[in-house]
Amino acid sequence: MLDIKEQSGLLEPTDVSEYLFTRLYQIGVRSVHGVPGDYNLVSLDYLPRCGLSWVGSVNELNAGYAADGYARVKGISALITTFGVGELSAINAMAGAYSEHIPVVHIVGCPSTIAQRDGMLLHHTLGNGDFNVFANMNAPISAELCKLNNPASIAAQIDHCLRECIIKSRPVYIMLPTDMAQKKVEGLRLRAPLDLSPPSNDPDREDYVVEVILKYLHAARNPIILVDACAVRHGVVEEVHDLVDRTNLPVFVTPMGKGAVNETRPSYGGVYAGEGSSADVKDRVENSDLILSIGAIKSDFNTTGFSYRTSQLNSIDFHSTHIVVRYSEYPGVFMKGVLQKIVQRVDLDQLSTVPGPTVMSGIEENEEPRDVITQKWFWPRISSFLKENDIVVTETGTANFGIWETKFPANVKALSQVLWGSIGWSVGAAQGACLAAKDGEMDSRTLLFVGDGSFQLTCQEVSTMLRHGLKPILFVICNDGFTIERLIHGMDAEYNDIIKWKFTDLVSVFGASEKEARKFQIKTRDELNQLLTNEEFNACPALQFVEVYMPRDDAPKGLVMTAEASARSNAKA
Amino acid sequence: MLDIKEQSGLLEPTDVSEYLFTRLYQIGVRSVHGVPGDYNLVSLDYLPRCGLSWVGSVNELNAGYAADGYARVKGISALITTFGVGELSAINAMAGAYSEHIPVVHIVGCPSTIAQRDGMLLHHTLGNGDFNVFANMNAPISAELCKLNNPASIAAQIDHCLRECIIKSRPVYIMLPTDMAQKKVEGLRLRAPLDLSPPSNDPDREDYVVEVILKYLHAARNPIILVDACAVRHGVVEEVHDLVDRTNLPVFVTPMGKGAVNETRPSYGGVYAGEGSSADVKDRVENSDLILSIGAIKSDFNTTGFSYRTSQLNSIDFHSTHIVVRYSEYPGVFMKGVLQKIVQRVDLDQLSTVPGPTVMSGIEENEEPRDVITQKWFWPRISSFLKENDIVVTETGTANFGIWETKFPANVKALSQVLWGSIGWSVGAAQGACLAAKDGEMDSRTLLFVGDGSFQLTCQEVSTMLRHGLKPILFVICNDGFTIERLIHGMDAEYNDIIKWKFTDLVSVFGASEKEARKFQIKTRDELNQLLTNEEFNACPALQFVEVYMPRDDAPKGLVMTAEASARSNAKA
Repeated sequence: MLDIKEQSGLLEPTDVSEYLFTRLYQIGVRSVHGVPGDYNLVSLDYLPRCGLSWVGSVNELNAGYAADGYARVKGISALITTFGVGELSAINAMAGAYSEHIPVVHIVGCPSTIAQRDGMLLHHTLGNGDFNVFANMNAPISAELCKLNNPASIAAQIDHCLRECIIKSRPVYIMLPTDMAQKKVEGLRLRAPLDLSPPSNDPDREDYVVEVILKYLHAARNPIILVDACAVRHGVVEEVHDLVDRTNLPVFVTPMGKGAVNETRPSYGGVYAGEGSSADVKDRVENSDLILSIGAIKSDFNTTGFSYRTSQLNSIDFHSTHIVVRYSEYPGVFMKGVLQKIVQRVDLDQLSTVPGPTVMSGIEENEEPRDVITQKWFWPRISSFLKENDIVVTETGTANFGIWETKFPANVKALSQVLWGSIGWSVGAAQGACLAAKDGEMDSRTLLFVGDGSFQLTCQEVSTMLRHGLKPILFVICNDGFTIERLIHGMDAEYNDIIKWKFTDLVSVFGASEKEARKFQIKTRDELNQLLTNEEFNACPALQFVEVYMPRDDAPKGLVMTAEASARSNAKA
Repeated sequence: MLDIKEQSGLLEPTDVSEYLFTRLYQIGVRSVHGVPGDYNLVSLDYLPRCGLSWVGSVNELNAGYAADGYARVKGISALITTFGVGELSAINAMAGAYSEHIPVVHIVGCPSTIAQRDGMLLHHTLGNGDFNVFANMNAPISAELCKLNNPASIAAQIDHCLRECIIKSRPVYIMLPTDMAQKKVEGLRLRAPLDLSPPSNDPDREDYVVEVILKYLHAARNPIILVDACAVRHGVVEEVHDLVDRTNLPVFVTPMGKGAVNETRPSYGGVYAGEGSSADVKDRVENSDLILSIGAIKSDFNTTGFSYRTSQLNSIDFHSTHIVVRYSEYPGVFMKGVLQKIVQRVDLDQLSTVPGPTVMSGIEENEEPRDVITQKWFWPRISSFLKENDIVVTETGTANFGIWETKFPANVKALSQVLWGSIGWSVGAAQGACLAAKDGEMDSRTLLFVGDGSFQLTCQEVSTMLRHGLKPILFVICNDGFTIERLIHGMDAEYNDIIKWKFTDLVSVFGASEKEARKFQIKTRDELNQLLTNEEFNACPALQFVEVYMPRDDAPKGLVMTAEASARSNAKA
């Protein structure tokens, strides 16, 4: 009797699940997020033998947010859900990953190809025999979508899909039917690592663009560099630092670019966000005659409501797929190679380097000293608490606008969701980020800043943090509801209220002993100062849950201005 | 200067939001579910003046589940979310409503038509200027989809959409741009109520079908009636009871049909679910020579894994859109009119009525008396706790299989999600059901039965129950994780484990005083007996949270058999 190897013509017959998970391991995944469901259970058995751990989030949306956070720190992540119910619960998280350029591999365990062919009336279906409907719903938010229905093509499909995920830095969607999970594919392929190198530019075209850029750069009187989200997402942070180091040009970040630049470099100038910027930053950026804009996503919340006062005639835009010099477009030219050549070829003798503003990291005092913790006092105070390598996760609301007012030590990673802005995202993302740091053996603390309203949506993910012994610091800003919404419309409306929770007991409900979780209630500046300078607190011996009480209607300046712009835009008729 | 009436040519100029919400009120909505977001805030201001209350769930998925539960009790419900992030968080709940035939009006506040036209790079978008992408994702799970972009057609669009929601008993999707929320439409239309009457059958065609059915019914030796979900969803419960009363034919329900029939009627025979049925039920149904099958959804979980041993040659199927007699199909004939005529025209002299089994509601004892609460003991024990008009919500898992083993008093409403089966649904649904009963001034208790694993996914909705002073009884079956998954695959697998929560403190975390929420830990049969016979407990003076401890791997027979069938089907190659 023939053994399976001879039967199949495969040299190293390997189960589909093992193939897929081994590839995930090879590209950097260590923990896999998700929720079990009967269409994915058999494949889950393969995780441990492929070196992967199961996270087991409390629900799929949280798992999706966590996978997003994990990928932002580790460069890649994976999410496993079950057909219909599971994948749709997570779809908002995947849409967010698509919007924000985050590479997440979403694997959906689905009914067998036989059940699909026969149109069986199975649970987790719409009852209409349509087994493609959920994949179709995922298509517009996936860089690539593949259905593993035929063992002959599965290995190649997986390899292609994972490469697209990394290269495009966006989620991909993989449908894994129950009867395919254990089919055999060629394991020999696994010996060659995936080619994950980005596509390279045509050298002549690249040189041409570089020459054009250098011409303008050398001619400029007071050029600056402005760094945005896609510099991080599409991997040119190193090139940006090389450029800053070589030229000493003033460098600014956008809100979405916060953390992309080492803020301790002497030429770091602060956060530019149009009207929401501090006066000196606004002045320097808007009066520059050449802005090297790297990886821009000029969304409303990233620009204080489209309030840039800059001209395209003074801009060179670097993108992952093209370059724009003033109004001249260069499609198919990726920024990475271009930036490398500019670093090499820039002629410092021809370059005019006019210094920019210096960023203060001190506490801005209010006119009179008060004991209440205001947003204006809080965020600068956080600056001196931050340490090198910290991971700072901020929720959309007072937190991700407030973080503009901090100055980061070197190598601080900032996670926020400025474009997609899904409420509750940050709690899941903090779990994923913290786990990624642990998996990567990084010497990083994970700090979450989230409002009480947002926290309630996804609070269960604290339970998952405890399940895995993670030790983040969770700052929950207790300010009585949806402040960002109040500022846009309905300052005192019932719909912006939340029910007040007794947060102090939450970690023990989630099963934590006093050793596993510490909790703090902070209502005054003194209390916060004491906590932030406490050595044990700084050492993160356990999960630490900090309630920080702030006034209901208080908000950072950037948020107030952005909310006003949103309200105007909504009402425009 | 012309006033707005003369300007517009409208006789009673009415704001779009007011028009929409007034219509919702007219068709029976009193509380509106949802989460605020900046694209829906202005419209929310209109709720109170239209007689509607805002629920304010803790997150959108919970809100969607709650809207589902509300509609199952009140006949209609409404959900308001915000563009992108909000609607996608709720989309699994809406897919469930579509799958299970539940009429929910989903209103999505979205960016202004001007922002859409200009393709602005707004928050809550994919960053690609596509403002139709989320509507397209909702299309396959909506009976009707309308975009309120033009004041001239908005009133008619709303009327059409709401009618479709009710008639088709499925969700509809309404996109409301911020700049349309306050546009004027003709309010005069509101004086005429919507026509919500179902389409009537062509009389000749209907008579023909009725004659065919009566021929077979009169000729049958031992006919029975089998009632399934769509009897409830498409409003023929009254006709079914008329038929039962007139004919005294044995009547059975499927798991999804549980609660559709008054179980105190003498000819009620129990739950039929193929192999999962009790022996006498199985025997009587499968040996019947004519099954009047009303509103069937023969899904795997509704049939113990497709284990019916019945023949289409012995079946007449009544559906909301067609009738099938043996293999003859009659499209476009709706069951309601047909059933009414059968009730009128059946000739009792020609009808052979052979009695069916009698349903016991007593407790099935195990071989030896034990103190531990087993599934086999628990569910029959619940029978005598139930009262007329109770609303019983069961989660997919041990609960919705266990409920087969209860006998209901009259007019008990059973809510479960047997086809869609989304884990965690029941907690939200219980909130919605309980609120609907309150809004409808029904003298009903709401009882939830949910496993500890499922409860964790959506636990926050207990907070919303407290926000509105609801007083359900929440039975949380503490059996250490995902028992339904364990039975399908991975009995001891880590992925089927959950982290143990300290449930006793949960209600106080959610802000409840001792007066607002009572809590109980039940570990023995004696303790449960005492609780269930306690007068105060029965009177529901507050929200009551009951932990019921049961063995981890114990499950009702129906679940065990269905899980085995699922595992076989998944593995079939």
